[in-house]
Amino acid sequence: MATPFQQLWRPVAGVLGLLGIGLALVIGLSAPEPAPEPPPTELGDGAPSPFLADRAEPILPLAAVAGIDADKMALGRKLFHEEALSGDGTVSCATCHDLGRGGGDARPRPIGSGGAEGVVNTPSILNAALGFRQFWDGRAATLEDQIDEPLHGPHEMNSSWPQAVSALGRDPAYQAAFAMLYPGGGITAANVKDALAEFQRSLPAPTPFDRFLAGDGSAISGDAKAGYKLFKSLGCVACHQGTGVGGNMYQRMGLLADYFADRGGVTAADFGRYNVTGREEDRFVFKVPSLRNVALTAPYFHDGSAGTLEKAVRAMARYQLGREITAGETKAIVAFLESLTAPPQIGGPGS
Amino acid sequence: MATPFQQLWRPVAGVLGLLGIGLALVIGLSAPEPAPEPPPTELGDGAPSPFLADRAEPILPLAAVAGIDADKMALGRKLFHEEALSGDGTVSCATCHDLGRGGGDARPRPIGSGGAEGVVNTPSILNAALGFRQFWDGRAATLEDQIDEPLHGPHEMNSSWPQAVSALGRDPAYQAAFAMLYPGGGITAANVKDALAEFQRSLPAPTPFDRFLAGDGSAISGDAKAGYKLFKSLGCVACHQGTGVGGNMYQRMGLLADYFADRGGVTAADFGRYNVTGREEDRFVFKVPSLRNVALTAPYFHDGSAGTLEKAVRAMARYQLGREITAGETKAIVAFLESLTAPPQIGGPGS
Repeated sequence: MATPFQQLWRPVAGVLGLLGIGLALVIGLSAPEPAPEPPPTELGDGAPSPFLADRAEPILPLAAVAGIDADKMALGRKLFHEEALSGDGTVSCATCHDLGRGGGDARPRPIGSGGAEGVVNTPSILNAALGFRQFWDGRAATLEDQIDEPLHGPHEMNSSWPQAVSALGRDPAYQAAFAMLYPGGGITAANVKDALAEFQRSLPAPTPFDRFLAGDGSAISGDAKAGYKLFKSLGCVACHQGTGVGGNMYQRMGLLADYFADRGGVTAADFGRYNVTGREEDRFVFKVPSLRNVALTAPYFHDGSAGTLEKAVRAMARYQLGREITAGETKAIVAFLESLTAPPQIGGPGS
Repeated sequence: MATPFQQLWRPVAGVLGLLGIGLALVIGLSAPEPAPEPPPTELGDGAPSPFLADRAEPILPLAAVAGIDADKMALGRKLFHEEALSGDGTVSCATCHDLGRGGGDARPRPIGSGGAEGVVNTPSILNAALGFRQFWDGRAATLEDQIDEPLHGPHEMNSSWPQAVSALGRDPAYQAAFAMLYPGGGITAANVKDALAEFQRSLPAPTPFDRFLAGDGSAISGDAKAGYKLFKSLGCVACHQGTGVGGNMYQRMGLLADYFADRGGVTAADFGRYNVTGREEDRFVFKVPSLRNVALTAPYFHDGSAGTLEKAVRAMARYQLGREITAGETKAIVAFLESLTAPPQIGGPGS
């Protein structure tokens, strides 16, 4: 028998559910196994690696997402696009985190309610679940904690939890869905956050580069393979590493050259993690962003100052690695980064 | 009037107090100021930099230690050398964290009570206060939390807090000191930890390299300056950076080449942060150690496998940066690392 929730969103949930199973199968097959005594290997140019999670590789394939609840994910997806969460009913999460724009807004900095410009570039939502902290300055520990801020932000959703919960409560479909999925609680701030976080946890998706790491030498181009070698030998992987190709540490913007002096002046937003900790050492320190799907999320950096991937790569080489790289090197690295783009999915992020 | 505590340790506290004032003056003069619009500069070979905390430098001078309580520090110093903290009264913190051996034990792995060998190299205590977490795998958040483990470890101090507190309570000098410094509490686990942590917070001390960063071009040798340039251009600073020249992030051992395969097999201790989080991504991940006073703390790495600084530098280049470096480059980097050694202090760590 179909429950009320199933009647409401069965089509969407069905597609997402099937997608989830498919994803789980695909990812499950390439999930890293504990390998107590890994043999030394190097990924060749086309020769498949027999090792699913090569211990000498600084980037790890996307691990299986554990136990996504398809119904909560579907509810979260609807909430993600729900303008009733905002104070004036015109802004949803998706307004700035547009799944058709790589989970961002394609602007240097967001335009909020009233036309006010935000102070940092909108981070992509696509890989937020892979981040060890949330926001550029890491001020939120979890996806759930993160939600409080855009909901309340006067130039973001400009609402409050009582207001948002009340707005959702006027919709019988939400009443029914929350009653079923969160029995005993119904529509509460915590449950809205839980569903939104469940949706975000469902978003990370395997890419051609994951297939390459899993041993498919034909999954990415020769340029991309050369770019990956450069990405390692130049030292990019010191920060952009792990499953997220970033998102697992903090680093100072302008480690080896003065990015801010060259850009011309600084604002408080440039102080990054210093704004959270007050420690002088944390000034200009930001969370290293994930590079998964980075080709979809121009412009780049916390200030949105790099308009293209090429410019971003060259600036990173200059300011973080202290070296100038050639046009050919840049092109190869960009090809590698493009191999980190997840294909559009039916019912998924790109749709 | 002299209080009981002052009567007990006035000489030590006096020397340490004067030292503290002197240090505060020295450090205070070179403390970094907030610099909203830092001009682009590069430290030259001998030309003093007019900027105390050059924003383009990845290493920051040691900031002034805020508000050390000289009495608690002196109590902590006594506790640090107190064998009554151990179960059989033969082991103190200083047994393994020997201030005359760079705050370590000069062994690959510690020898605990009963002659059992520990599983990881003893970290130096000298810069523990600068670390963002404690232990190689970061499993303790604070200096205070860290203390629980060696106190209880069967092959370390093999004691318990009731036992340790009781042992200290049999000494009237401790009774008097704790009663004065921790009124209302006296000798408790929390207060013992507090005093030990206060002592540890007092240990980080300025080095010739800090004077160089502050503009004294003659503070370090030409070799050390060349080594610092290499340290930046090779990419060492991606991890060894900030005030601690490390100690502010995690990194995978063997990022670009398979350290463990080359060493021959792994043990559970090699899993590092994985042992804390259970996340596959954290396997072989360790806290990046501080390089301050590193010249005093051979042998190196979590497994104590590198017997000399030269070997450690070459191994880091190979496994973390994916490159072989020359003997000349190694020598220069070692000279730079030697400039990170704090001089022995009267009444301080080296005495």
